[in-house]
Amino acid sequence: MKAKASAAANTQPFHQILTSAEHGLRVDTWQITSRELDQRGPTAWTVRKHTLHGGKQDGVDVIEVDNGRLRFTVVPTRGMGVLRVDMGDVRLGWDSPVREVVHPQYINLQSRGGLGWLEGFNEWLVRCGLEFAGAPGRDQFVTNTGAEAEMDLTLHGKIANIPASEVEVVIGREPPHRIHVRGRVDERMLFGPKLELWTDISTEPGAEAFRVDDTVRNCGAHEQEFQMLYHLNFGPPLLEKGARFLAPTRQVTPINAHAATAVNGFGEYAAPTKGYIEQVYCLQLYADGRDRTAVMLHNAAADRAASLGFSTAQLPCLTLWKNTAAMAEGYVTGIEPATGFPHNRRIERKFGRVPKLAPNQRRRFTMDFQIHLGPEAVKLAADRVARLQGGRPTQMDSDPMPVE
Amino acid sequence: MKAKASAAANTQPFHQILTSAEHGLRVDTWQITSRELDQRGPTAWTVRKHTLHGGKQDGVDVIEVDNGRLRFTVVPTRGMGVLRVDMGDVRLGWDSPVREVVHPQYINLQSRGGLGWLEGFNEWLVRCGLEFAGAPGRDQFVTNTGAEAEMDLTLHGKIANIPASEVEVVIGREPPHRIHVRGRVDERMLFGPKLELWTDISTEPGAEAFRVDDTVRNCGAHEQEFQMLYHLNFGPPLLEKGARFLAPTRQVTPINAHAATAVNGFGEYAAPTKGYIEQVYCLQLYADGRDRTAVMLHNAAADRAASLGFSTAQLPCLTLWKNTAAMAEGYVTGIEPATGFPHNRRIERKFGRVPKLAPNQRRRFTMDFQIHLGPEAVKLAADRVARLQGGRPTQMDSDPMPVE
Amino acid sequence: MKAKASAAANTQPFHQILTSAEHGLRVDTWQITSRELDQRGPTAWTVRKHTLHGGKQDGVDVIEVDNGRLRFTVVPTRGMGVLRVDMGDVRLGWDSPVREVVHPQYINLQSRGGLGWLEGFNEWLVRCGLEFAGAPGRDQFVTNTGAEAEMDLTLHGKIANIPASEVEVVIGREPPHRIHVRGRVDERMLFGPKLELWTDISTEPGAEAFRVDDTVRNCGAHEQEFQMLYHLNFGPPLLEKGARFLAPTRQVTPINAHAATAVNGFGEYAAPTKGYIEQVYCLQLYADGRDRTAVMLHNAAADRAASLGFSTAQLPCLTLWKNTAAMAEGYVTGIEPATGFPHNRRIERKFGRVPKLAPNQRRRFTMDFQIHLGPEAVKLAADRVARLQGGRPTQMDSDPMPVE
Repeated sequence: MKAKASAAANTQPFHQILTSAEHGLRVDTWQITSRELDQRGPTAWTVRKHTLHGGKQDGVDVIEVDNGRLRFTVVPTRGMGVLRVDMGDVRLGWDSPVREVVHPQYINLQSRGGLGWLEGFNEWLVRCGLEFAGAPGRDQFVTNTGAEAEMDLTLHGKIANIPASEVEVVIGREPPHRIHVRGRVDERMLFGPKLELWTDISTEPGAEAFRVDDTVRNCGAHEQEFQMLYHLNFGPPLLEKGARFLAPTRQVTPINAHAATAVNGFGEYAAPTKGYIEQVYCLQLYADGRDRTAVMLHNAAADRAASLGFSTAQLPCLTLWKNTAAMAEGYVTGIEPATGFPHNRRIERKFGRVPKLAPNQRRRFTMDFQIHLGPEAVKLAADRVARLQGGRPTQMDSDPMPVE
Repeated sequence: MKAKASAAANTQPFHQILTSAEHGLRVDTWQITSRELDQRGPTAWTVRKHTLHGGKQDGVDVIEVDNGRLRFTVVPTRGMGVLRVDMGDVRLGWDSPVREVVHPQYINLQSRGGLGWLEGFNEWLVRCGLEFAGAPGRDQFVTNTGAEAEMDLTLHGKIANIPASEVEVVIGREPPHRIHVRGRVDERMLFGPKLELWTDISTEPGAEAFRVDDTVRNCGAHEQEFQMLYHLNFGPPLLEKGARFLAPTRQVTPINAHAATAVNGFGEYAAPTKGYIEQVYCLQLYADGRDRTAVMLHNAAADRAASLGFSTAQLPCLTLWKNTAAMAEGYVTGIEPATGFPHNRRIERKFGRVPKLAPNQRRRFTMDFQIHLGPEAVKLAADRVARLQGGRPTQMDSDPMPVE
Repeated sequence: MKAKASAAANTQPFHQILTSAEHGLRVDTWQITSRELDQRGPTAWTVRKHTLHGGKQDGVDVIEVDNGRLRFTVVPTRGMGVLRVDMGDVRLGWDSPVREVVHPQYINLQSRGGLGWLEGFNEWLVRCGLEFAGAPGRDQFVTNTGAEAEMDLTLHGKIANIPASEVEVVIGREPPHRIHVRGRVDERMLFGPKLELWTDISTEPGAEAFRVDDTVRNCGAHEQEFQMLYHLNFGPPLLEKGARFLAPTRQVTPINAHAATAVNGFGEYAAPTKGYIEQVYCLQLYADGRDRTAVMLHNAAADRAASLGFSTAQLPCLTLWKNTAAMAEGYVTGIEPATGFPHNRRIERKFGRVPKLAPNQRRRFTMDFQIHLGPEAVKLAADRVARLQGGRPTQMDSDPMPVE
């Protein structure tokens, strides 16, 4: 299948379709550079699509965007997740025990009592959702006969193991020549959800930042529950002994009794620790007058960091997953802005944290990521978090979050 | 892989293998036309095999037969189902919430309490079976030790998500130059069923009709239960407010209390109705002296219709599935001739509706489909149904079909 | 993807990578012969890699080694199993009801109450393991929170349905020019096992023997249970009425009451028998001073046989699976050296038969197979088994192996 480049006028953005189920098209390999678009800016960039081969990753599509300063890798085959981001010596990502970018054909979400998702989990950014996003276990649903029945939800939902149906690259012909990777992932069925995700992952040539801009739409005729959790996973070099998570925190609640024992140091990280049991904290954040907030992770020396800006109106909950286990077990922390917390949906529903979409209603999630190099840049980012906190108090709960 | 055309003498039918697991062969794209076979009849025809790409349909084989008057699309990768049929402005098929022709690698039949089948359901003709064909839920089976154990059956069985192992196109060199798409689908395992389906889907150049001619064989050494249900699904244009289902009906029994409330209008259809809950009716039909019967669906104006002729000896039960929900939810009716009704197999067995095949025994299912354009053609078809009824009474049951 | 031949010096073994997830590489077809390596020995050999097409086997990699005397077929896509071995008129393998080499994408291990494995089972050598290897059913595991939970194990584990991530062919440039097919299969996940299998399957040009040399390594940071069972399956011509299994047997225990009824003839085989229910025996063997033992299967005339030498320190248990059912049902016997017996892991654990690996610890399993043609060769092999028995008694248990 040859790729067809858009022949649109030069003032229109450059537009390249890489996958289109609608048009029966999938491009195996493709590349474009700033030179080919005759862009003479100070920073040369490249967008490259290729296909992985071998083992469990055979046939997996990946798109690498190198904006000349920062690189990220999108995986259309795994629900438009982002495998990793690199800038200088900073890598956003982690060293999962899962080493390949596993094709969904090898994932059985129901395996291991609903934990099969963990056999493919190694990306930096994984979306959890859309019908359900949290812990496995029983919940209710409505069958074809209109009756309530029970089903076993599987960990973190399906969206990360659904291939994108439409994928395209869009690049502005006018400065700032923003580079977009866009994709649509469908979670649709008869007698079930008809949810559609459009994601737009973009950056500018030479920038130290990028944006993930998602829209979830209910394509069904009825009101539809949904959940969205962004599982953002960091290992070294940002995560290390003495690394810190900073957030303008209004309330922090341990998810269980084990996490409760260490709630006071929730933002501090230990070295890889053999036998470490995960500690999970449910956070509610302060935001500015326009509901924007920001959180960050910096290394021990506070000279390398990544920050994330988002809207608490869009993503009112943030879960902090600390899993500073031995390197071979997966030394990782998850920063997880979401529509709720990662309990089973029946619990989330009980506490009013499962949003609904009216027919054809959309809900948007915009996240701005930035990498900060050098102590000054890190301090600037930390100051921003401090300003958002604005001296307001943090409620530290000693009791776990209620589930009944 | 290059396709090898048969070099047989010209009096032998033209024969093209498209898939053969036995010979390690799969043809990616291929086409033949009446011109290439030097057929100078009044109607030019085409048979084209290609492969879908993109999203969940990547790698799905499809075969399109255009007999010059009528077109149908067979999907070898999905158990030789028929995606759609088109003639003039009539389309046999429906607008499922599932938009792609989903590759079986993305289907987990056990998902959602055994309803995973619904994530791939969008064809016009889907076979349900072969080991089991009905509702999900517990049933017994015999293990390797000869002991009875329990397993969870999944909705409508496996056959629609098994790729055909052998696929071929056969075309008569002599008039009427009948065009056949044939395929074999295996449902075989150790300590389980060894069932084989051969289907032959055929038409004649210029015809308004086509035939589905299936043979199921028990390849095992022991008597084997099986079930076969043809899930034939119609949306617009035939299905619309005022459309009617006609059948020479001996008895109609609602499947549950909800359907019982509307049994009197079981053959009439509503407009797309938000919140409509499916109504399902179990029918037994009258037939002629050779066990042939016919049913049909016509639009509101009674100037467009499709009819189906089959044998009540082969397919003694017919289920009518009315799901006139909102368009976005799947506005569809299913006309489902079968060996039984779509209850869980344990119920069907209890009521004597699960047939068995002796070792090497075959059972054949032949269905003749026709599309009728214009009020005269529709009236002729309706008259045929009326003659089969022959003024005999229809027993309308007000109580649901017993399941205990 | 073009294969890149190693450009190493001629004294280094010839080395060809066929699959490498690490390098994003998969070779579709490839071949090498003794002539191309300029080897002028008495026996011409060939190694050929190709890809199966059609039906459920589409995309399955196979490697055929023909050492000039003996041929075997390795299936990287199915966990580096060995489909069959042929020498003269002897075939190691069987005629399973499953006729294709089924791609793992079509296997749902959880199907049929955990028996989905049987839908792909047709190889001569299938590894069962690595996390669990036996019967399906409930067992405990440790979740992400460190809590004990329950999961349903599936029959014979996952390893046979995981594609190899690295595959290579290595051939000695110096006599005896040993030919190796090597592969790595990963069974790794977060919050679960991090087990790695490296297999080296090798033979010498002209030899009547070959070796399977496996190493399992625990890549995690914690002690890890594992199980390994080699399911070696024989049908005709070695299996026939009057065929015999010979082993230096210290103790034989029927697995259940049904097998107990026929324990005295456990080493003798019947003709294909309609309605035969499997009989399974758990054996412990005598070995020589270096823990080496040998077992064999010979035909009725005792002029065709296959033998297997291995270490009882490595593989302390041997299960004999007799399934002399009708040909169409699968006429087969399994000779299954293993780390334990094929009960559910919870039973094996209770009786101390589930080994553990310390972090980074390896355990090696080496099996030497030989085919014996002619009565003299068979007698020599049988004499070796008799010497290993050395007149020592066999304890024949009349009661089934305890499970409580």
